[in-house]
Amino acid sequence: MKKLEDLQELISQSVDKLTFPVHPAELYEPISYILSIGGKRMRPALLLMACDLFGGNIDDALSPALAIEVFHNFTLMHDDIMDNAATRRGLPTVHVQFGTNAAILSGDVLIALAQESLSKMGSSFASRMIAEFANGFRMVCEGQALDKEYETRENISVAEYLAMIDLKTAKVLELAGVLGALSGTGEYLEEIRSLAHHLGLAFQIGDDLLDLTATHAELGKTIGGDILEGKRTFLFVTAMETYDQLTETDRALLDRIRNRAANPDDVGTARLLFDRIGVLSSAQRAKKDQTVLAKNALGAIPAGVARDRLDAFSDYLLERAG
Amino acid sequence: MKKLEDLQELISQSVDKLTFPVHPAELYEPISYILSIGGKRMRPALLLMACDLFGGNIDDALSPALAIEVFHNFTLMHDDIMDNAATRRGLPTVHVQFGTNAAILSGDVLIALAQESLSKMGSSFASRMIAEFANGFRMVCEGQALDKEYETRENISVAEYLAMIDLKTAKVLELAGVLGALSGTGEYLEEIRSLAHHLGLAFQIGDDLLDLTATHAELGKTIGGDILEGKRTFLFVTAMETYDQLTETDRALLDRIRNRAANPDDVGTARLLFDRIGVLSSAQRAKKDQTVLAKNALGAIPAGVARDRLDAFSDYLLERAG
Repeated sequence: MKKLEDLQELISQSVDKLTFPVHPAELYEPISYILSIGGKRMRPALLLMACDLFGGNIDDALSPALAIEVFHNFTLMHDDIMDNAATRRGLPTVHVQFGTNAAILSGDVLIALAQESLSKMGSSFASRMIAEFANGFRMVCEGQALDKEYETRENISVAEYLAMIDLKTAKVLELAGVLGALSGTGEYLEEIRSLAHHLGLAFQIGDDLLDLTATHAELGKTIGGDILEGKRTFLFVTAMETYDQLTETDRALLDRIRNRAANPDDVGTARLLFDRIGVLSSAQRAKKDQTVLAKNALGAIPAGVARDRLDAFSDYLLERAG
Repeated sequence: MKKLEDLQELISQSVDKLTFPVHPAELYEPISYILSIGGKRMRPALLLMACDLFGGNIDDALSPALAIEVFHNFTLMHDDIMDNAATRRGLPTVHVQFGTNAAILSGDVLIALAQESLSKMGSSFASRMIAEFANGFRMVCEGQALDKEYETRENISVAEYLAMIDLKTAKVLELAGVLGALSGTGEYLEEIRSLAHHLGLAFQIGDDLLDLTATHAELGKTIGGDILEGKRTFLFVTAMETYDQLTETDRALLDRIRNRAANPDDVGTARLLFDRIGVLSSAQRAKKDQTVLAKNALGAIPAGVARDRLDAFSDYLLERAG
């Protein structure tokens, strides 16, 4: 039974141990670059914990854990191109640093590396894990496609927004939980999937909230970045559902956000508006609802130290968000 | 024991049977588009033939055959972005028709679909096939990276060129052969791999030759396109190896090709030069050598109708090229 920090350390070691050919440099340098930027390795940590739940051997889960981390970095690399993002974790994104072609191709190779890692596992559920991975992979791409589609759509309902983050954010966590369970005994698979699903939704809603409620130090990036970029977040789509009841001034603010024309002064005003019309509390409630559903799923799993660790992991993940 | 046309028909039916969700349209329309453009489905045909060699059940090989065809279309979609190609098989490329973001993301989904198809197979060699697929996938990306690197490199030796087409072109055929063999009995795996490897090299060298030796009607696109685009082909890198012995005029022509500054009048001159300095005959010899090696590999496989079909397939493939 391992603690979160131990698992994160295990994964970091596995990532560090990945060695790549020197040549073609254009292909492997961007991969070393993005993997070295780090991150908290939460997805593979969840995978290892799910394996650990019923006494599965964590060593058996390291290959799929590495696969999920490498896959996650693929999504970052390709999404950053599509989102035209200039920085990630304070550093230039791969396509800015190495060029778009390199970012496309290195992202492709990350998928191949994830598959290579996955193919090294010895689980009796191997073929099912491959199928889950392929399906999860496709769902994540569907989520990204919806996210891009929403950027140019006039109105998105809260339900549509939730369907998008379910695909784009929650599916990778679900996949991590499922691959972890299948690396172990495969017991309580659907409960683990449900836990990861609701955790993913709670996490993303919390992440949307943080954009306006965190301090700069907590967030590590500009407060109100989502407002300035006109991102379709839980806060924005919830606010838009009240559009017809708002004053001219409030509507003008929402229009500026929607048209990516908001200015830094709008950030404070948006926060006040979102507070006044109940958007912030609505997001807090939605996050809490998803947290309760996650904990319910967890509650269906037999009690024990491993479950307690997963409980602590959930709290840690959600603390970071909102 | 099935004939090539029957196998191509089988694959076309499998491709046609692929249905995609209507939504997100941005994701699935480009996929339907590129798969409908067609092509001769040679890679999956080789896969089915390799399965058929020792009485394997072709139905068992249809999932991996579809996977290899879908994977091949992924490479086309992403390569066309990187190569800035405007048309493919006479139609606008995906990124021209649907935008670069859509081409990146739809290409990613093609990999997921290939994996989904692969995960449906029931072979006892499944985990080995997944590993072969992941490795082949990575090698193909390495080949594309080298191809892009060579575009801006001053000098590329013939050996470096061959190493590049080995990765970029031959590896997909090898993978097709290997997955086919493993869908069947798995016998004579290395002979089939060797056959596909040499066929792939012969095919690419032949394809390079066709750019200057085919008629417009045979080629279906502009003669000398490689010259005008300054492509590093077998012909060009072989000619460059004699650079120091050439006249000022001949060097100036090679420089124009290298710098992508060749004009339509240069195409005829390049053909005369390549003929005069023995580049065309050198390419014909290299293609023939690879063909002999392919046939040698084939000769190591027990004689029979299935081997004869594979022999006919090889001839058909190489006839189309050079």
